[in-house]
Amino acid sequence: MPRTRSVPPRTGPVRLGPDARAALRPAAAEVRAGFWHARREVNARTSIPQGPGLLESAGNLHNLRLVAGTAQGEHRGDFPFVDSDVYKWLEAASWQLAPQGPDEDGDGDDPEIQRLAADVDRIISLVADAQQPDGYLNTWFQIRKGGERYQDLRWGHELYCAGHLIQAAVAHHRAAGRDELLDVARRFADQIDSVFGPPGSGKPIDGIDGHPEVETALVELYRETGEQRYLDLAGYFVDRYGHGLLGGAAYCQDRVPLREATTVEGHAVRQLYLLAAATDLATETGDAGLRAATERLWHAMTTTKTHLTGGLGAHHDKEDFGDPFELPNERAYCETCAAIASVQWSWRMALLTGEARYSDLIERTLFNGFLAGVSLDGERWLYVNPLQVRDGHTDTGGDQSARRTRWFRCACCPPNAMRLLAGLEHYLSSTDSDGQGLQIHQYVTGRYRADLGGSPVTVTSETDYPWHGTITLTVEEAPADRPWTLSLRIPQWCRAYRVRCGTRTYAQTDAPVTDGWLRLEQPWAPGDQVVLELDLEPRLTAADPRVDAVRGCVAIERGPLVYCLEQVDHPGGLDDIVIDTTHPLAVKHRPDLLGGVTTVVAAGHRRRIPDAGWWPYRPTADDTGSASADEPIELTAIPYHAWANRQDGSMRVWLPTS
Amino acid sequence: MPRTRSVPPRTGPVRLGPDARAALRPAAAEVRAGFWHARREVNARTSIPQGPGLLESAGNLHNLRLVAGTAQGEHRGDFPFVDSDVYKWLEAASWQLAPQGPDEDGDGDDPEIQRLAADVDRIISLVADAQQPDGYLNTWFQIRKGGERYQDLRWGHELYCAGHLIQAAVAHHRAAGRDELLDVARRFADQIDSVFGPPGSGKPIDGIDGHPEVETALVELYRETGEQRYLDLAGYFVDRYGHGLLGGAAYCQDRVPLREATTVEGHAVRQLYLLAAATDLATETGDAGLRAATERLWHAMTTTKTHLTGGLGAHHDKEDFGDPFELPNERAYCETCAAIASVQWSWRMALLTGEARYSDLIERTLFNGFLAGVSLDGERWLYVNPLQVRDGHTDTGGDQSARRTRWFRCACCPPNAMRLLAGLEHYLSSTDSDGQGLQIHQYVTGRYRADLGGSPVTVTSETDYPWHGTITLTVEEAPADRPWTLSLRIPQWCRAYRVRCGTRTYAQTDAPVTDGWLRLEQPWAPGDQVVLELDLEPRLTAADPRVDAVRGCVAIERGPLVYCLEQVDHPGGLDDIVIDTTHPLAVKHRPDLLGGVTTVVAAGHRRRIPDAGWWPYRPTADDTGSASADEPIELTAIPYHAWANRQDGSMRVWLPTS
Repeated sequence: MPRTRSVPPRTGPVRLGPDARAALRPAAAEVRAGFWHARREVNARTSIPQGPGLLESAGNLHNLRLVAGTAQGEHRGDFPFVDSDVYKWLEAASWQLAPQGPDEDGDGDDPEIQRLAADVDRIISLVADAQQPDGYLNTWFQIRKGGERYQDLRWGHELYCAGHLIQAAVAHHRAAGRDELLDVARRFADQIDSVFGPPGSGKPIDGIDGHPEVETALVELYRETGEQRYLDLAGYFVDRYGHGLLGGAAYCQDRVPLREATTVEGHAVRQLYLLAAATDLATETGDAGLRAATERLWHAMTTTKTHLTGGLGAHHDKEDFGDPFELPNERAYCETCAAIASVQWSWRMALLTGEARYSDLIERTLFNGFLAGVSLDGERWLYVNPLQVRDGHTDTGGDQSARRTRWFRCACCPPNAMRLLAGLEHYLSSTDSDGQGLQIHQYVTGRYRADLGGSPVTVTSETDYPWHGTITLTVEEAPADRPWTLSLRIPQWCRAYRVRCGTRTYAQTDAPVTDGWLRLEQPWAPGDQVVLELDLEPRLTAADPRVDAVRGCVAIERGPLVYCLEQVDHPGGLDDIVIDTTHPLAVKHRPDLLGGVTTVVAAGHRRRIPDAGWWPYRPTADDTGSASADEPIELTAIPYHAWANRQDGSMRVWLPTS
Repeated sequence: MPRTRSVPPRTGPVRLGPDARAALRPAAAEVRAGFWHARREVNARTSIPQGPGLLESAGNLHNLRLVAGTAQGEHRGDFPFVDSDVYKWLEAASWQLAPQGPDEDGDGDDPEIQRLAADVDRIISLVADAQQPDGYLNTWFQIRKGGERYQDLRWGHELYCAGHLIQAAVAHHRAAGRDELLDVARRFADQIDSVFGPPGSGKPIDGIDGHPEVETALVELYRETGEQRYLDLAGYFVDRYGHGLLGGAAYCQDRVPLREATTVEGHAVRQLYLLAAATDLATETGDAGLRAATERLWHAMTTTKTHLTGGLGAHHDKEDFGDPFELPNERAYCETCAAIASVQWSWRMALLTGEARYSDLIERTLFNGFLAGVSLDGERWLYVNPLQVRDGHTDTGGDQSARRTRWFRCACCPPNAMRLLAGLEHYLSSTDSDGQGLQIHQYVTGRYRADLGGSPVTVTSETDYPWHGTITLTVEEAPADRPWTLSLRIPQWCRAYRVRCGTRTYAQTDAPVTDGWLRLEQPWAPGDQVVLELDLEPRLTAADPRVDAVRGCVAIERGPLVYCLEQVDHPGGLDDIVIDTTHPLAVKHRPDLLGGVTTVVAAGHRRRIPDAGWWPYRPTADDTGSASADEPIELTAIPYHAWANRQDGSMRVWLPTS
């Protein structure tokens, strides 16, 4: 999408402070074509522009007007966090309106851009008008609770909403260079800072919000304003979780202090936002205890509580992480917001530590657990992202349906997805803190740019990833006087790759990967090319045997993509299908299908299940075996992220092998 | 427990009306020793006597006094169905106080009995005093809602509570021959009948309750009073579900009319109570459409939505049945109340149809899914009955914890379990409607009695079932003039049995089972003996392959009992254990353990799981196999119903085979 202005590029989410103890710092990137460009175009041209209308019809904007005294009527919406949808949309629109590159054409005449910019200005005005003179702002409490504040921290979401307001303001300031919303956010943050503090601080409330969010926002506000007290306030909040201020509920992250926790637990999004804040704090302050906690909990999460898609959260009930290795398929919660939060947290971990595995998880989550939440047309959403829908599934409706919905009663996910897609280029590349090189975390067609100790570096990239494994990188700009390191993330899923650097081709054995990075150190001249070829042979994947839900099953994967079967391609249903693992998998690109996807074709059969009467359990001694009667069937797997874009029906990622 | 009076025995729940179209009619039975006697003793001497104190401390009785004007203060309890706990307890106590047999010693001097009888009288007085002059009674609505009635049928539970009041009244009348509570119930039923009716009836409300229950109660009230209009009102209610009066929610059984439903769905207990009522109606009226629906839905339930334990309900969220073959282990909901409702419904189906499979499911449910809900000491309860608790399980507390609780905030299960145990003898035997014989559905040590066309029949029974498979039946009383049929249910799980009848021993092949019944027709004389030997070899059980949750696993069963492993017997945990299915199972009776249980000992090993780094999924091509490094371990399985009576820890029913 074209941009309005050609101000210098600014970093997006997570602009580290000057004293940050991070291994890496975010670099600039642009997405100009290819897979993610197409999805971002839909986001820019459909999803985000529809936001104001949806926020109007759902009542969110009306609520702001009510508070400002410019409208009459009832407060609308079913949840106290109804304001946050507005702020998340403002953040999304701000990133969207930000200039992408220094050579961006000005196109202030584009009517779409003009309309979006006008919407942003209009809604920021509504927000500013709704703010109380002392900085407080929450329409639910101002209207429904008669202005009573901070009396229901466990469920009230006042600080949560403040956090999203602050993030929107930071985005707007970074992207547009304007102060209107940032001023609103600062006033609110100051009001919060005047009220909340530890015992003995003289502040009236020693408390935290039931839903973490303001903490990571306050660190960003510190980064944007340089005000240390926002960082201090974030640190105070983070360390007050786990001490019973919220009744000790794991749901609210209050069962155990983060520094003592041994695994992720409770409400997944709350846990992840809190961990993002803890990582921010460890990064900005060098707090070794917090850093150790985040590294420990990330490991506990990925080893025991992450679905193959990167999806997080095993329980519908309380939106909870569940127990280790409890990773159900049909009842996987895997909230789209949890996938977004996981990307946000892992990116902070990647910067803090410099380790590639965090971006491995980001890639997996982006291409699977996150992207499934957004329909191909950008108009329908999934709140939960199951890995299986059974034949004969009864849809109970509601937000947590396994069918796509236009908007939700609890509309947290759609604007959250919009802001991630609009800011996606900020999760793609980095530089070392000491300016020694450029790291490419995610492969797109576009451009990566960094400043290496005062010398600009620009690398362009062409790729059909994830459909093809070839990525062609061309150095456009580089310091003439010295070598530097171009680091390419070799994905965790990748078992074979080749790299051609100038006239030399390295086989995998000659170009070793350390800690997930293929590091190419040399003097680079404009025009130098690196061609990375990642082997995209489709593969069958099995799980740790403690993941009971998928015992005796495999999943089809290719590159970063998890695949699934959909009933529309297998009209007889999916629940009696068995995959033949001895038969080779075939790849078939289908430009006609789902906007163009590469399918994987496998051999299998339909199991004939003898009628067992009224009881479906039988002694193993009664087994007779009936494989010979089974009916062969060709299985067509599509990328998981593209499911639920045709007819309603059954779906499954994990396929029985016998 | 000794009884107070020696009035003639009365049937318990489900005393069929004179015109009922049932294949069978309940016969009288007594439980005098053995397995169920022990559990009923705990129920009689601990659980039921503790009821009044718990109802007092939880506020239920206080609420009745508030309404009666004899107490001051706030209404207590978190749910509008708080009154129903009182009624379920009254029903339990009434069955408990009922005389068991004609030769029962009078023991009005037993102080325990005196205290219980006094408690019942006292609480019935409280209920009667709380009733409004026109018959209405619901403390929640009388106090909290300012007396507003029937305005929130979806959530209000007013008719649900009325149903439990009616059931308690019927029990008290049948058991004690007294009218006080029955009069209260009739007044309430008459008030309901004056208000609810179809369009055109002149009644002000065309509506149904969000939680079915009053329907089956009204049929019982019809049976007890002979008043046809109670039966008609029940029929009206049952047929109004599924027409959108409650917004069409599957949760409330309102998505589809029962007559059109193809599977059980929504909230499990609501579905089961509605089906019990439908079966009652089919029985009393001969309604072929309702009968067909109940038979169809029972089949759908058992073939696709029943856990091995007989437990029902796959979702914590909305306490829902879930999809076909969606039968998770760790998140099995399997509410104790759903197991109770399943027994109540299946007994009605057994009587209606005469088919043994309904009592097969009752046996399985009683010994497993139901009984696990009650601790061995009768003081602690499980609301949900999972089939697995993982190593490292985080207990989130609350009613739906996998740890036993003394009483619940939502205390529906404990008094429900009390009423089933107190009335258990009424689910054990039957006579044909045409008086041709006695059917023994469940084997206990005790006595079965029936009236065969005016001639009394008495058969005593001695057995150590379920620990031993020998059941010795002795005819004590029989008509001298004619043959009749003694029918013994051969359990669905049983693969081998022998029967000795007088001096002759029949092998299985000589004594065929038809439709689950072994029918012995002959003239019987007092002293005649039948010895049935059911083979209790332990067995390994597998599930239909569509039950994804247990693929690659087996369960240990013996006789009617499902077994499980508990961490206390396997201190290293359970989640890496594999059972060796080629090794024979050994049986070991352990009188010292858990009040005396037969354990099953199996061979297995602990899987050594190589460290896979941070990602627990791997290409199958990377598999190396490491079985040789595994550590052998002896597995000690205990009956599932006895789990959670020692230390907290992990537990599992289904065991991986590789």
